Amino acid sequence: MTKVVIVGAGFGGLSAMNALAENLDIEITVIDKHNFATFQPLLYQVATAGLNPGDVAFPIRTLLRRQKRVNFRQGLICEINENENTISLLDGEKVPYDYLILAMGATTNYFGVPGAADYSQAIYTLDEALAVRNKVFSMFEWAASHGVKDFNLTTVVVGGGATGVEMAGALAELKLRALQTDYPALDPAAARVVLLEAQDRLLTAFSPELSKYASAELKSRGVEVRLNTAVKAVSPNGAELADGEKIEANLVIWSAGVGISKEISALGLPQLRNGRIEVGEDTRVKGSHNIFCIGDLAGTSDSDGTLIPQLAQPAIQTGAHAAKMVVALTKGRPTSAFVYRDKGTMATIGRNAAVAELSGGLKLTGNLAWIAWLALHLMTLLGVRNRLSVLLNWSWHYISWGRGPRVILGG
Amino acid sequence: MTKVVIVGAGFGGLSAMNALAENLDIEITVIDKHNFATFQPLLYQVATAGLNPGDVAFPIRTLLRRQKRVNFRQGLICEINENENTISLLDGEKVPYDYLILAMGATTNYFGVPGAADYSQAIYTLDEALAVRNKVFSMFEWAASHGVKDFNLTTVVVGGGATGVEMAGALAELKLRALQTDYPALDPAAARVVLLEAQDRLLTAFSPELSKYASAELKSRGVEVRLNTAVKAVSPNGAELADGEKIEANLVIWSAGVGISKEISALGLPQLRNGRIEVGEDTRVKGSHNIFCIGDLAGTSDSDGTLIPQLAQPAIQTGAHAAKMVVALTKGRPTSAFVYRDKGTMATIGRNAAVAELSGGLKLTGNLAWIAWLALHLMTLLGVRNRLSVLLNWSWHYISWGRGPRVILGG
Repeated sequence: MTKVVIVGAGFGGLSAMNALAENLDIEITVIDKHNFATFQPLLYQVATAGLNPGDVAFPIRTLLRRQKRVNFRQGLICEINENENTISLLDGEKVPYDYLILAMGATTNYFGVPGAADYSQAIYTLDEALAVRNKVFSMFEWAASHGVKDFNLTTVVVGGGATGVEMAGALAELKLRALQTDYPALDPAAARVVLLEAQDRLLTAFSPELSKYASAELKSRGVEVRLNTAVKAVSPNGAELADGEKIEANLVIWSAGVGISKEISALGLPQLRNGRIEVGEDTRVKGSHNIFCIGDLAGTSDSDGTLIPQLAQPAIQTGAHAAKMVVALTKGRPTSAFVYRDKGTMATIGRNAAVAELSGGLKLTGNLAWIAWLALHLMTLLGVRNRLSVLLNWSWHYISWGRGPRVILGG
Repeated sequence: MTKVVIVGAGFGGLSAMNALAENLDIEITVIDKHNFATFQPLLYQVATAGLNPGDVAFPIRTLLRRQKRVNFRQGLICEINENENTISLLDGEKVPYDYLILAMGATTNYFGVPGAADYSQAIYTLDEALAVRNKVFSMFEWAASHGVKDFNLTTVVVGGGATGVEMAGALAELKLRALQTDYPALDPAAARVVLLEAQDRLLTAFSPELSKYASAELKSRGVEVRLNTAVKAVSPNGAELADGEKIEANLVIWSAGVGISKEISALGLPQLRNGRIEVGEDTRVKGSHNIFCIGDLAGTSDSDGTLIPQLAQPAIQTGAHAAKMVVALTKGRPTSAFVYRDKGTMATIGRNAAVAELSGGLKLTGNLAWIAWLALHLMTLLGVRNRLSVLLNWSWHYISWGRGPRVILGG
């Protein structure tokens, strides 16, 4: 039996696992620090109380149930011992491999902005999304309980990519609806949502006309969109801009970009300047014959030499390719180059508004894009129960104009 | 406007609020330490990953939305200033009242058993239930990851009342199904579930024949039921019995009874020996003319002088009575005595098995009792969305033989 170890059960790792699981002579061990897979694209809805945490988390063991030769192990990788083909986990155990597929993903990148790591909130993990939800509603509760009508409830969202746009849109809806209905004592005007983007347009991964549409939609929903606006520092009181202006805010959401964690750099693999692991055309780590790297973590290039985006689709495709390469190697066949097929990308702005840019140049906005977004995300979610639950929450949300599960859990 | 302050948004407090809300000349302030109401009867299902936390939590402000003269304030009461008719909250604010209704409920009672408070887990709050879930699955993950086939996965449940019986039954099902399907590497025999009851039968609030049925059903599902078995101490390694026997266990669930918290004793109200607040026939606190006490917190007597049970039904009834008394007093009318109407009680054991004892002596067991239990709890849940979500989870659970949201959240 060939032993394949997959580290990370995100889109990439699970895609590799699925592609490998059919092979009778391959035994797979999946390792993840959580016992569940997180559906990251919907975390911003957990953060804004549109969905419950359980809706976007799927138990990994339930996934593996039908796979006979797949094991799961909860743990954190801390060392790769290439000379003996094992990895070490934080709890001291060693796991042997014939082929290793690294798919630990990326983490929030604060780009060294002072205070950003300490005083802003990321929404890259389920815990982080839940923390944001708790913070938003604790802030509303505090202001309402103390009768501070002019209390500053401003939220600053840093970064106008898909995550930032989706978060700002959801916050604007929350502010409109939740304040109106649940906190009538508070002044919605005090609950500003400010979206900051360093470049000259939002959603730079999309065509300029879609950026323009997103900007206009966000503004019509009450979001203050500020382009060409870089953040110099974050403090407990808000964000300071490059030109010295200070925006007082009770909450700063950091969605300016992703990077590679220190723990991964400590593994000693070759890294590009942006931290992503250097890989060859066949998705193998540079200089290694049996270690693959996929998904957000990998510095995989498109055929024109540019790095492919750190999104679900590329992760799924690189995962499947790495799996194919492992099979090829076990059969003594040569590896082949990964070819990225861009299927397009989507971002939602809010109720009845989204943008989608599909391969072939088809561009959608408004209601149609929104419905396409809903359908695609519902289909990609893991597990029938989660799909039904999300569908229920979304329908409820739509009909009731945004009555979400606004509970402050924990702490 | 008459100011009524209700502290605690459980069954009792919300019942009082609903009964008062129709009165045009009464302004209500509801105070709770959480911003959501917890549906306690289903917490054991959150603990055993049958339901998600959000399913049993309902945002209080969403409840109040249609009530014009009801305010909510998140906070903890720490002092009652009877001379000036105000209460002080922990954050330093004072809230004035004309009438005060105390409905803070009870807490877990460890009866002074050494180690119990430190080394056993209660399932009385949402956070506690989630902590139990995390502990159960972390224990399974740990054992599975380390390949310790004979790892001790025993859970001891202390107390054979309704909560203990429901918890033991759910754990037994979890063990049967989850270990079989999600953790095939673990030995189900090592995952004992031991239910300890100090008295000579389970469910002492029910008829002996129902106790016998519950015992037999639990045993047939693999629970070790031990009657006449008192716990002397709890340690990190398990429970020590009165006769010196030690049961090695990785998890001890404490469901032996409820008591009144120290924080409430510090309020200086007259208390019975069991800690419950002394109240008169009209549910007013002994010696006070404008402070009421209801629900689990109140030492309310039945017409025959025995204390009424600390359950949802009595809380709802005392809450409604206190509200009626407040209205009577504002109109200069005399108060009247509370009369408890015992509608019966229910407990579920597991799939297709429950016991119900209704007023009038009707006793149900098995499938019929189980369906009655499901229907009643579904109907009493707050909020249409929560009801649909629980219904979805239950149906899913039933069809899929127990695939629950087995995710370890947080920490």
